[in-house]
Amino acid sequence: MFHRPIRFGDVDAARLVFFPRFLEYCHDGLEALFAALDGGYPHLTQQRGVGIPTVRVECDFHAPLRYGDVARLEIDVLALGRASVTVRHTIRRDADGAVCATVRHVFVTASLATLVPVPIPDDVRDLLSRHVVPASAGPEPGAAS
Amino acid sequence: MFHRPIRFGDVDAARLVFFPRFLEYCHDGLEALFAALDGGYPHLTQQRGVGIPTVRVECDFHAPLRYGDVARLEIDVLALGRASVTVRHTIRRDADGAVCATVRHVFVTASLATLVPVPIPDDVRDLLSRHVVPASAGPEPGAAS
Amino acid sequence: MFHRPIRFGDVDAARLVFFPRFLEYCHDGLEALFAALDGGYPHLTQQRGVGIPTVRVECDFHAPLRYGDVARLEIDVLALGRASVTVRHTIRRDADGAVCATVRHVFVTASLATLVPVPIPDDVRDLLSRHVVPASAGPEPGAAS
Amino acid sequence: MFHRPIRFGDVDAARLVFFPRFLEYCHDGLEALFAALDGGYPHLTQQRGVGIPTVRVECDFHAPLRYGDVARLEIDVLALGRASVTVRHTIRRDADGAVCATVRHVFVTASLATLVPVPIPDDVRDLLSRHVVPASAGPEPGAAS
Repeated sequence: MFHRPIRFGDVDAARLVFFPRFLEYCHDGLEALFAALDGGYPHLTQQRGVGIPTVRVECDFHAPLRYGDVARLEIDVLALGRASVTVRHTIRRDADGAVCATVRHVFVTASLATLVPVPIPDDVRDLLSRHVVPASAGPEPGAAS
Repeated sequence: MFHRPIRFGDVDAARLVFFPRFLEYCHDGLEALFAALDGGYPHLTQQRGVGIPTVRVECDFHAPLRYGDVARLEIDVLALGRASVTVRHTIRRDADGAVCATVRHVFVTASLATLVPVPIPDDVRDLLSRHVVPASAGPEPGAAS
Repeated sequence: MFHRPIRFGDVDAARLVFFPRFLEYCHDGLEALFAALDGGYPHLTQQRGVGIPTVRVECDFHAPLRYGDVARLEIDVLALGRASVTVRHTIRRDADGAVCATVRHVFVTASLATLVPVPIPDDVRDLLSRHVVPASAGPEPGAAS
Repeated sequence: MFHRPIRFGDVDAARLVFFPRFLEYCHDGLEALFAALDGGYPHLTQQRGVGIPTVRVECDFHAPLRYGDVARLEIDVLALGRASVTVRHTIRRDADGAVCATVRHVFVTASLATLVPVPIPDDVRDLLSRHVVPASAGPEPGAAS
């Protein structure tokens, strides 16, 4: 779980968090998850040359976030393939647990030099395995926790 | 159609356009489309109090964009409901026409004061109607134009 | 003091933190400082209607930050006027304490409705007073700590 | 001269353009200026390996920009050294010409591989030379044009 205060520049002219920022939060959540790796995500990408280019995202927006809110992010792993990972990000408003967005996110592990997929490195697979949930589990979108 | 050079700060530590930026480009494309309205999108949101909160996006990423590329954006309207609009954004690399991403984007017209959906205003409906395509039409994802 | 990991999207096509982000970090640092107020900076701006529009910034850049670095921010208050505040942000690379940037930042307390300056609210003044240093004090720009 | 519409995500929770964005606009202006080079700024940085790391910026903010405004940017070159360049960015609100910010910006030409300064390349010097003004010339900060 990862908490992230909404920052002053995250909102848009409608005073709501600008919707592309939700995907930035998802990436922040992944960086926080990968911090459990030796050297974290920076070492994975900058030294080992392995990244996680996104293949597909499906985002459902249920409730807005505003400046002053704190977002609470959870990541569940729905599927682990050879080089492909499907996760679900659940983004809640921390104060009341309301689900603001759910994001189904498919990425691959790939060489950053060539962008060719590579098998999920063992330590990454071990880490992600600890967050696998049955695909049918997890929060009901839109329901408060 | 809308052209947008990739800017120096748009890429990430993998030297590829950071994937949340694609949704920013989609919004830029909508702002460019809405510029045909009297007063454009700023007048719609700031004076008339009507916004277009996003309900759902589905993004497929086919090829990367890099600094130095120019993105070419096209918007097709797939469905027009009472207060709901479904569009498809096609984001190409301008130099060779390769499709880098396709985004199916559902938004509603809503009061920005209450976030309650309101019927699509007539001028907005007229504008969007001119961009309607059959849902089966449009670019094959991943194919170069 | 405030720590902020450099995020994946913070760098630019030169693989260095894009220099405008340093000012975002400064604002993040101020938001962290103002968290000691009742309701924090969100309450100050959104409920009490008082903001801190920036009048002037002077930034000296001494060393780059890269993805994988953690920025360490410190704020010293150099001057407190009736409605005007001068602070110095020192942004270090946490690993070795090297000063990456120093920012002299002048802002005013102002009504967000009218942008007219208002006297620094008492609780804000109390908070800032606890961080006042003599103008001559503080880190030597460019020197490691 | 370079025009840049304020985008929906450029503002902050105070509904004003978030002040770090002004430096992004300055960089956008420089990219537009450098577009006159063969291959533009992308070719300079990505193929020739020469960048322009910022050494110092001094920004004075005179008037806010809001969503719906168009920023008009002008760049004057104040000083050209061996590897150092000082420019002044003037950022106006296009509708009435009001100066919203003036930014004195010092950068060096440097190898992006080593960050060691290199002499200003001839084509860059030729380009910048055409924009040199006496340091005392230019807009009075805060005055409308």
